[in-house]
Amino acid sequence: MTGAEELDARDPLAGFRERFVHSRPERVYVDGNSLGRLPRAAAEELAARVGEWGDRLVSAWPDWIDLPREVGDLIARAALGARPGEVVVSDSTTVNLYKLASAALAARAGAIVSDRDNFPTDRYVLEGLAEQHGRELRLFAADEVEGPTAADVERACHGGAALVSLSHVAYRSGAVADMAAITEVARAAGALVVWDLSHSAGSVEVELHRCGADLAVGCTYKYLCGGPGAPAFLYVREELQERLRSPIWGWFGQREQFAMGPRYDPEPGIARFLAGTPPILDLTAVRAGVELVEEAGIAAIAAKGRALTSYAVELADEWLAPLGFELGSPRDPERRGAHVSLRHADAWRVNRALIERAQVVPDFRGPDSIRFGYPPLYTSFADVREAFDRLRKLIALGAHRDLDPRPTRVT
Amino acid sequence: MTGAEELDARDPLAGFRERFVHSRPERVYVDGNSLGRLPRAAAEELAARVGEWGDRLVSAWPDWIDLPREVGDLIARAALGARPGEVVVSDSTTVNLYKLASAALAARAGAIVSDRDNFPTDRYVLEGLAEQHGRELRLFAADEVEGPTAADVERACHGGAALVSLSHVAYRSGAVADMAAITEVARAAGALVVWDLSHSAGSVEVELHRCGADLAVGCTYKYLCGGPGAPAFLYVREELQERLRSPIWGWFGQREQFAMGPRYDPEPGIARFLAGTPPILDLTAVRAGVELVEEAGIAAIAAKGRALTSYAVELADEWLAPLGFELGSPRDPERRGAHVSLRHADAWRVNRALIERAQVVPDFRGPDSIRFGYPPLYTSFADVREAFDRLRKLIALGAHRDLDPRPTRVT
Repeated sequence: MTGAEELDARDPLAGFRERFVHSRPERVYVDGNSLGRLPRAAAEELAARVGEWGDRLVSAWPDWIDLPREVGDLIARAALGARPGEVVVSDSTTVNLYKLASAALAARAGAIVSDRDNFPTDRYVLEGLAEQHGRELRLFAADEVEGPTAADVERACHGGAALVSLSHVAYRSGAVADMAAITEVARAAGALVVWDLSHSAGSVEVELHRCGADLAVGCTYKYLCGGPGAPAFLYVREELQERLRSPIWGWFGQREQFAMGPRYDPEPGIARFLAGTPPILDLTAVRAGVELVEEAGIAAIAAKGRALTSYAVELADEWLAPLGFELGSPRDPERRGAHVSLRHADAWRVNRALIERAQVVPDFRGPDSIRFGYPPLYTSFADVREAFDRLRKLIALGAHRDLDPRPTRVT
Repeated sequence: MTGAEELDARDPLAGFRERFVHSRPERVYVDGNSLGRLPRAAAEELAARVGEWGDRLVSAWPDWIDLPREVGDLIARAALGARPGEVVVSDSTTVNLYKLASAALAARAGAIVSDRDNFPTDRYVLEGLAEQHGRELRLFAADEVEGPTAADVERACHGGAALVSLSHVAYRSGAVADMAAITEVARAAGALVVWDLSHSAGSVEVELHRCGADLAVGCTYKYLCGGPGAPAFLYVREELQERLRSPIWGWFGQREQFAMGPRYDPEPGIARFLAGTPPILDLTAVRAGVELVEEAGIAAIAAKGRALTSYAVELADEWLAPLGFELGSPRDPERRGAHVSLRHADAWRVNRALIERAQVVPDFRGPDSIRFGYPPLYTSFADVREAFDRLRKLIALGAHRDLDPRPTRVT
């Protein structure tokens, strides 16, 4: 096995590490897929934006008002394989999924299809829409490690469907779904697919246009490093924009917004999917994060992601499998996002012990997984090695055994 | 007429002016009802929060996760006359209105009632809901200056209604609606009222409980000084929380959120009206602004607001009425928010000239109003006087006459 030092020495993206804030050098942070690190530029640009608020006040709005589209275009080209005018940033992933899923249901008849292991907020949004629209919600069971396949979706869509909603990279296993094949079988069944790209934007190559994808949403606070609770993006393929309508008719989706006309008349383009006033400070931070992704190039980022996870899998096989850990992510590197999950019978306590006693920060995902995230822009091969080295030592010491078991309410 | 200097010398809130950033001393900013000034504390606390993101990363989430409720409780007691556990801050005013109006429609049968002069995004949201739910939308015509009355609402609700949606302080005229009386007639007609408090939170005394109000939303970037696009609040009276349900079923409204259970099971309290991940940087800025409101006290703020607008009306009568300006706000100070509108045949060009040539920043609201906002925490009587003094000089010089007329697209 090639060593971490050599892998880091060869890493063409190694220089990006210093573009982020790294306090606490003793900590190994492998949870950037939950909350990405702070880009140094984001701190500077946020301070400048706050200064602009104080100094220019409402006179700055003409420079701010297009930020949802400008940052959307930036994400589209840097991370999504989408075109200008197809992506906008505002609202949360949950609200954006609600908007696009509702729009799809208004346009198509039939059931809603998703997988049981989809991210909770996605399932809850769909469950609500199914009830409100009187649609059947079909949650199929995919392979827990390999994730949903086109065959799964085809089976679930049997007899026709209105909407398929899936994560492109699974939040627990990191499995990458076959976007092109799933889009095709869903389309054949009459359904529109809304992809959740929260774990793929900025970690793997997303090719919305090449795959013929119609709709997508995703968060910006993971691999795009937009900050805690940063606004999400949504994508609507250009040809569909005129045919779909957000259920939330707001003034930022209105044509000639400041004419304040008597009737709602939605913008012809992607802006019709905006609702209220967009968060300007947050958009500033998001832009700083995405600019780093653009500068590094998503192909290089995705390649490093595969190398990092491959190295993690090699180490896990050698060091951790004998200690009761099982890989909860696909073995094929092409089928993985930039995180891996390890399953362990005592995963909850092991995860707590890593955080509290070993200064390693992954996260627990029930029922039995510890998720190690390796955002390629700032994660070194030495980080991957160090996290697992401390993990094996912790297990050897039994340093998790005196912790309380998992409480009912996990926060 | 008492002079501005004397009024400022007697102002018990004068000391709060220096708690905000004031660059460009030559500028007279009278548009804080569009975007409030930057509190010095907000700049400091935002910088600290950004630092916390960089340093603590995901480990800070346990300290962040209750911010929507904590800042909601703060707004409830500082500005709304509501109880702990009744207000939450997240999402935009538009999205929050959509959530509460949808919830009301799911609970009640009948029409949707609002006034033609309500704020555009409110009307658009209601128009969309009327179409989606197959409800009649009744937009009544209120007096343009005095705003909607209980008699107007009673008439519009004739035969029963599901939902009344009104602004408490009208965005153009500044008229204060009679919350208690309107709530009563709406309730008698079977309707729930959603109040939009965007122009009243932090400017006048809002007494949601005393008035028996059921539902409300409002923005935080005007008198609460939360920053451009800061998240909005929503209020649901405690007794109603269990009976209403947001249409957007998201993980931040889920009981035991991180158990990530298979079915949506909403929180029993106000948190069920949350949806996605809340914006932590923004919430930090909002809190700093609302803390100033709490410190000053809403009774003192509202009293100063009435004094500022009364002084403005006196000056307008003396200086500006002879120049073709007409008061577009109620004459009774108790019926005004903290802004006044002046109507003028050439309002659009006069407003541009004020901004571009006189360093006075009000805003234009069609068809013929210039709106002067006087957030009591940082507006001096000298500001009120100076804005109108420059206005009368500008008119005397005809300094607006060579500007182009109002374009079709106004931004």
